[in-house]
Amino acid sequence: MRALKNIWYMAAWNDEVPAGRLFFRTLLEKPILFFRDSQGTIKAIGDRCPHRFAPLHLGNLVGDAVQCKYHGLQFGGDGQCTHNPHGNGVIPKAATVPAYPTVERYGAIWIWLGEPALANPNNIPDFPLLDLETFAAGHGYLKAKANYELESDNIMDLSHIEFLHPLFATEAVRRGKIETSQEGNVVWSKRFITNEILPSFLEEAFRLPPGGAADRWLDCRWQAPALIELYSGATPTGRSREEGNLAPSVHFFTPETATTTHYWYAMCCPLSVGPTAHKIAEEQTAAVRGPFETEDLPVVEGQQAMIGELDFMSLGPVLLPGDAGAARARRILEKLIAAEEAQG
Amino acid sequence: MRALKNIWYMAAWNDEVPAGRLFFRTLLEKPILFFRDSQGTIKAIGDRCPHRFAPLHLGNLVGDAVQCKYHGLQFGGDGQCTHNPHGNGVIPKAATVPAYPTVERYGAIWIWLGEPALANPNNIPDFPLLDLETFAAGHGYLKAKANYELESDNIMDLSHIEFLHPLFATEAVRRGKIETSQEGNVVWSKRFITNEILPSFLEEAFRLPPGGAADRWLDCRWQAPALIELYSGATPTGRSREEGNLAPSVHFFTPETATTTHYWYAMCCPLSVGPTAHKIAEEQTAAVRGPFETEDLPVVEGQQAMIGELDFMSLGPVLLPGDAGAARARRILEKLIAAEEAQG
Amino acid sequence: MRALKNIWYMAAWNDEVPAGRLFFRTLLEKPILFFRDSQGTIKAIGDRCPHRFAPLHLGNLVGDAVQCKYHGLQFGGDGQCTHNPHGNGVIPKAATVPAYPTVERYGAIWIWLGEPALANPNNIPDFPLLDLETFAAGHGYLKAKANYELESDNIMDLSHIEFLHPLFATEAVRRGKIETSQEGNVVWSKRFITNEILPSFLEEAFRLPPGGAADRWLDCRWQAPALIELYSGATPTGRSREEGNLAPSVHFFTPETATTTHYWYAMCCPLSVGPTAHKIAEEQTAAVRGPFETEDLPVVEGQQAMIGELDFMSLGPVLLPGDAGAARARRILEKLIAAEEAQG
Repeated sequence: MRALKNIWYMAAWNDEVPAGRLFFRTLLEKPILFFRDSQGTIKAIGDRCPHRFAPLHLGNLVGDAVQCKYHGLQFGGDGQCTHNPHGNGVIPKAATVPAYPTVERYGAIWIWLGEPALANPNNIPDFPLLDLETFAAGHGYLKAKANYELESDNIMDLSHIEFLHPLFATEAVRRGKIETSQEGNVVWSKRFITNEILPSFLEEAFRLPPGGAADRWLDCRWQAPALIELYSGATPTGRSREEGNLAPSVHFFTPETATTTHYWYAMCCPLSVGPTAHKIAEEQTAAVRGPFETEDLPVVEGQQAMIGELDFMSLGPVLLPGDAGAARARRILEKLIAAEEAQG
Repeated sequence: MRALKNIWYMAAWNDEVPAGRLFFRTLLEKPILFFRDSQGTIKAIGDRCPHRFAPLHLGNLVGDAVQCKYHGLQFGGDGQCTHNPHGNGVIPKAATVPAYPTVERYGAIWIWLGEPALANPNNIPDFPLLDLETFAAGHGYLKAKANYELESDNIMDLSHIEFLHPLFATEAVRRGKIETSQEGNVVWSKRFITNEILPSFLEEAFRLPPGGAADRWLDCRWQAPALIELYSGATPTGRSREEGNLAPSVHFFTPETATTTHYWYAMCCPLSVGPTAHKIAEEQTAAVRGPFETEDLPVVEGQQAMIGELDFMSLGPVLLPGDAGAARARRILEKLIAAEEAQG
Repeated sequence: MRALKNIWYMAAWNDEVPAGRLFFRTLLEKPILFFRDSQGTIKAIGDRCPHRFAPLHLGNLVGDAVQCKYHGLQFGGDGQCTHNPHGNGVIPKAATVPAYPTVERYGAIWIWLGEPALANPNNIPDFPLLDLETFAAGHGYLKAKANYELESDNIMDLSHIEFLHPLFATEAVRRGKIETSQEGNVVWSKRFITNEILPSFLEEAFRLPPGGAADRWLDCRWQAPALIELYSGATPTGRSREEGNLAPSVHFFTPETATTTHYWYAMCCPLSVGPTAHKIAEEQTAAVRGPFETEDLPVVEGQQAMIGELDFMSLGPVLLPGDAGAARARRILEKLIAAEEAQG
């Protein structure tokens, strides 16, 4: 599939790959096996044994290596065969699988599927919302039968809240102002809602006193390939943002294939809230699964079904104000991919 | 798919589209949304929102318009966007979906998928069997995983009764005479059976006295694209047709795709029978579902599985006398499609 | 699909086609109908009626002919239409289906899908293990979602036992010596294990006294297209093979399609064991289904999933010593197919 290659993709939450276990996932159409070595360091290698092409994930973890279930060849985290139990035990030169640079950071596993020499962990973006010293973050995951850009469009365009998420659709949501801006290859889509009477579950989420009017902001920050931070907070109306209570979240997408997407989300709670921060983050992350799964997912998968194999832009989508952020994000991504292709 | 465009297709029974509800169906590979406006008039529009391509059938009916579930754009029965809740509310020119001419007649909804300027409700054929002042008609529907011509072949060739429908296969059925004739682009396939000892359920269906010999006729009338009336009746042997009791039916087919078909059928009972006519029509329509579903459908779907992506005629089917009507119908349809293609 | 044409393929165990029944199976992508005539002789004809292409297997056996369910045409085992119940009853010349030469031998049904004039029953290989005067044989069948060469590779390369079949993996298995040899177009892959302490179920299978060291051999004999005899036996260590107790088996594969395979296996027990030989053969055949289905099948189907539509050899598989036999078999098969293609 056509996608940006030389960039860090999210591959999993760290707790999806516990020690001592093999974890298999397809990313950008590549079958990849994840495991931890004896130091706990995450490793990612091609899942196809170079001997008979059996899936390595059917095998076992033996020390720091994966043993193929079929004939017992073992492969280390660098993709090299470390053990051949057959014949004179000499390891054939061709007995290797791809090894993908990985980094564990922000509670997530990041993978580099492009040119290995270009993999630089410093290029993993900063995600303050996932900084474990400041925030607690729940770990949510969904798989969508839709292209990943349809998913990132969905978050960048929060003008859908009013229609798709009735529980969240206050009268004030409609009056919200949307501003889009760009900083280099980062796109901001900011929504500000003032004088809003929040439903009590949202008052609670923002830790506001009950019954008063609120100001609320929902600021989405997109960067390639499809990593969105949603800085969300609220104050009693008229107060400064600095006084606000935050209920932010992140929404990260990686293509499985051209028409299916891995979606990781996290509701984040400032540790300053106190010892309940982790419980709050986990509960809120569990709570949003409902609307994500029963409201967003059917629409996004319905879009994909309507689009089929065609290119989204080639169908000439009508542009509304709420699309400005998503449209910019798509243009940047297209530009980055085209630049990569131009370099060969 | 290759099909006749400028002709009325059946789209649904009228009771498939109740007031206040959205009804979705694919016809000739087009996703189409049906609903009734506040006057009860049937409307048919493209099911794909021009904004983000979400399926409109996930949305809601709001007055005379369909509101998209995703961002609340509303579309009227003419396909024009009638409401844009975003920004300054101006409706983008491109915010339209196709609108298809529809007519509700004979208890059915008819749709025109071709050149809109050519849509003329007067060209919907007459169907005396569905004339609600003369006949009661049950409403049956099946979906078949087979091309629609395999389905219309099936009805036009009743020589299969003897083999596929053992309950209906009297000794006399085999002796039945078949005559095929053509009037313009209409094909008749007529079968006449004389001196038949009918099973009691057929005696009852034809309202004949028990135990006597009967004369029975099964006259199929095909017209494009795949609309078949089956004029069936019986008398005690030797009597004139005018004295006969009728148990006719209609069998209408519209392609969903090249290999799947919508099949609507109706058993019809003359209102002259008295106040039980509607009950009879409904009971007979319910009763034929059994053989249609368990006897015809497996064969017709089996044919499709054997044919696969190939063209039926290219496989050189052997012709038997019973195929004369279906073969003529296929030739006429092919001629009509070719003529339409020649016009560009 | 690309496959050897002019060779006998196994089509079924004889008991898969009981008298009076129609049996349908796809072989090399051809839909084929099997039945027995009134003498019990096996017949194989194309499953597609030449009239309307209905699947003949939906029909009935009428004497020595198959009657189509749709319109009652009957076809004999020679593929000729024998009865046309329509019109004047004349049988159209084109009313034929392919007829495939078949032979019932060794408890199996063999079919010739190539040029009919070349079909010579003498060319069905000898299978002493299926000689009913010497051996009892159980009849096992599995269908695999994998190419048939992946299946024959699996049997020819028994170096996988140690890893894939833990119950069978004695310490001595690893020390086993593998020798590969070729006789014309027959490939032998022989494994000899000495001084082995067998688990009790294997001691029992080989009818050895409990507790002693054993010598065991596993000699696989492949011939095209994918017919493998596994001559397996054991003695107390140091004795001659002539004194050994045999527990051999056969493993025959026929492609259903390029990516699915029919797999027939039989555990064989020498009749010299006495009256329990049949029971032993049947019990052992039933017992191996477990590992075949839960250990081999997931790996072989996993290989196919990893290979997808690609050609196995084009992916450059790493060769290990255990692959020598399978690699020779693949080369011979490729040579035979290429020779057949060269002849046109």
